[in-house]
Amino acid sequence: MPEMRKDPVIGRWVIVAKSRANRPHDFEAAPSRRKGKAFCPFCVGNESHTPEEVYAVREHSSVADTPGWSLRVVPNKFPALQVEGQLDSRGDGIYDLMRGIGAHEVIIESPRHVLNSTDLNRKEMANVYWAYRERLCDLKCDSRLSYGMIFKNVGVAAGASLEHAHSQLIATSLVPVVVADEMEGAKRHFNARGRCIYCDMIRQELQIGSRIVYDGPDYIAFCPFASRMPFETWILPKHHWSHYEEIDRPATESLAVVAHSVLSKVETVLDRSAYNYMIHTAPFKQPTLGYYHWHIEIVPRITNVAGFEWGTGFYINPVPPEEAASFLREVDTERLRPQTATKSEAGKNGKNRADYQNMRPCFRNDTATRA
Amino acid sequence: MPEMRKDPVIGRWVIVAKSRANRPHDFEAAPSRRKGKAFCPFCVGNESHTPEEVYAVREHSSVADTPGWSLRVVPNKFPALQVEGQLDSRGDGIYDLMRGIGAHEVIIESPRHVLNSTDLNRKEMANVYWAYRERLCDLKCDSRLSYGMIFKNVGVAAGASLEHAHSQLIATSLVPVVVADEMEGAKRHFNARGRCIYCDMIRQELQIGSRIVYDGPDYIAFCPFASRMPFETWILPKHHWSHYEEIDRPATESLAVVAHSVLSKVETVLDRSAYNYMIHTAPFKQPTLGYYHWHIEIVPRITNVAGFEWGTGFYINPVPPEEAASFLREVDTERLRPQTATKSEAGKNGKNRADYQNMRPCFRNDTATRA
Repeated sequence: MPEMRKDPVIGRWVIVAKSRANRPHDFEAAPSRRKGKAFCPFCVGNESHTPEEVYAVREHSSVADTPGWSLRVVPNKFPALQVEGQLDSRGDGIYDLMRGIGAHEVIIESPRHVLNSTDLNRKEMANVYWAYRERLCDLKCDSRLSYGMIFKNVGVAAGASLEHAHSQLIATSLVPVVVADEMEGAKRHFNARGRCIYCDMIRQELQIGSRIVYDGPDYIAFCPFASRMPFETWILPKHHWSHYEEIDRPATESLAVVAHSVLSKVETVLDRSAYNYMIHTAPFKQPTLGYYHWHIEIVPRITNVAGFEWGTGFYINPVPPEEAASFLREVDTERLRPQTATKSEAGKNGKNRADYQNMRPCFRNDTATRA
Repeated sequence: MPEMRKDPVIGRWVIVAKSRANRPHDFEAAPSRRKGKAFCPFCVGNESHTPEEVYAVREHSSVADTPGWSLRVVPNKFPALQVEGQLDSRGDGIYDLMRGIGAHEVIIESPRHVLNSTDLNRKEMANVYWAYRERLCDLKCDSRLSYGMIFKNVGVAAGASLEHAHSQLIATSLVPVVVADEMEGAKRHFNARGRCIYCDMIRQELQIGSRIVYDGPDYIAFCPFASRMPFETWILPKHHWSHYEEIDRPATESLAVVAHSVLSKVETVLDRSAYNYMIHTAPFKQPTLGYYHWHIEIVPRITNVAGFEWGTGFYINPVPPEEAASFLREVDTERLRPQTATKSEAGKNGKNRADYQNMRPCFRNDTATRA
């Protein structure tokens, strides 16, 4: 049974999944290259190798856990949290702990063995974003759960173990500290100025323009002012919306357009390096909020987190977001090929895109801290 | 000029080292293996390839920046922060920024091309810990600086770019958020109970025993109750001490003994995997504090941080600290060779050390989150 333990000083919770330490065969070294033709439990026809599906987009006549689907959601076979039981929150001297209750699901994005979300067509992508909503709505009904985090790991350096395109959902009994910090900061701004800080950010970014990556009718994408990582990019709905699960069908279709474009740009500029994305949304138990605004954070993993970042929480980013956005804007996603940097841009930056393409997952973030 | 930028929502500061992005030749892919006989600017005889030393342990007759030293501290050739100038803190709409003022130094731990601190003898190690103190005391006099973070990156996965044994010191104008959180949590405990939370932790760990890695007269090492990473280990002085720089000569010698033992254990169990260590100490401008207690956090980097951790701040640790401590205790550091797990231990854990030795830097932390 997984256990949640709290650091007594800073209150950070950790999930200790002890059961996993008892399975030495799980500790396999990660493949440094994509496996290609190895057996894939996510491919069509291999449905019996996953737990039973909890949601699917499938042909009307087809039967659960058999072919005929275009998207499946299944519980994770190796969950970080367990869905059965009560929290059993307790103390042990100065320490606090509870049982690791929660849900851990996998969204299998296609029956075909595609490696990236951007290999999906836009209808398939929209289905993924709708599936996120459906699963959040369902899990929200479980009174033990407080938060649903949707995330995606692409590439070994970003923590992916299977290459078949998939995302994950972990629902937890506690509101994660990162989310709590965001809520608090956003509330402070709202109380002081009466406006959503993310709406303010959108306005300022549109006015400045230099960090914009994509400007569509419903969504905006930009490299945030205080980007932690080179080419970090956020996607926000222009309409104020606190909970992702309030999204409707047309909005998922529109999101598919912007996400396909932005992810293609990131993958192209970084030559398909590893990245994560996470959906930041308001906690389940909060009503519709005026101060919070759901968004997607895309974090390319071309640099490693080193001792300075671990010890301080400061990040060192060697690529200013204005330059990152300039490169990302240039990528022609219709052709899905990088354009050559214009002469004026190359002159302005003193380099061209090829320089960034040297930044591979094995490139460390201490270019700045390197001794 | 590096710039510090604040995330407007959660207040996290990021160092944007723009100058580095203008130097494409810095963006070299990291070596996946140790370079062996490549040129090393940290070796004796190559003093002209580093900036001028700011501190050294050297023979009386020897001249600065020439051979004759056993330890050197030099400014980082590629600093994350710049030492000259004023902060120039300012706003830009909803954003806050300031110049990236601070110090970034490298502690070269030996004139020989050794790869690990544990290759040093104990006198050399004590010199390293004394050098930390000397540099902190010096930088503390600069009124623009608020905090000195000492850290070490060992191995590519931990962010190291040069293999020659070295540590780093970055002094910042702001107290880092991780430290501020620790100070706040420790103060809360002190206000409620009148005791240092770290002293309480030491007492409880000694009483329980199962997470202890090393118990010496002056220092204790244990795997913390809420370890983020497998085999995470902390070293704390048993004497209550808020600031590292209050350390005296005998205490650095004693620290050398425990650190050599503990780092050897970590390196042996994980077959010399990558790791970081960070010294957590009280901010420069704080007086001696009853509620804070300096300590060293050693974080092995055998797992990657994936989307769930990025998005939530929760960590998923597949190795309970009690099991990690049990393995670390077994390593006979006098022989510097792993002992075979005793039968009872192997039976208790259901596995032996060889199982953990399969956990390499390329092993991802999503064994627990793996789909």
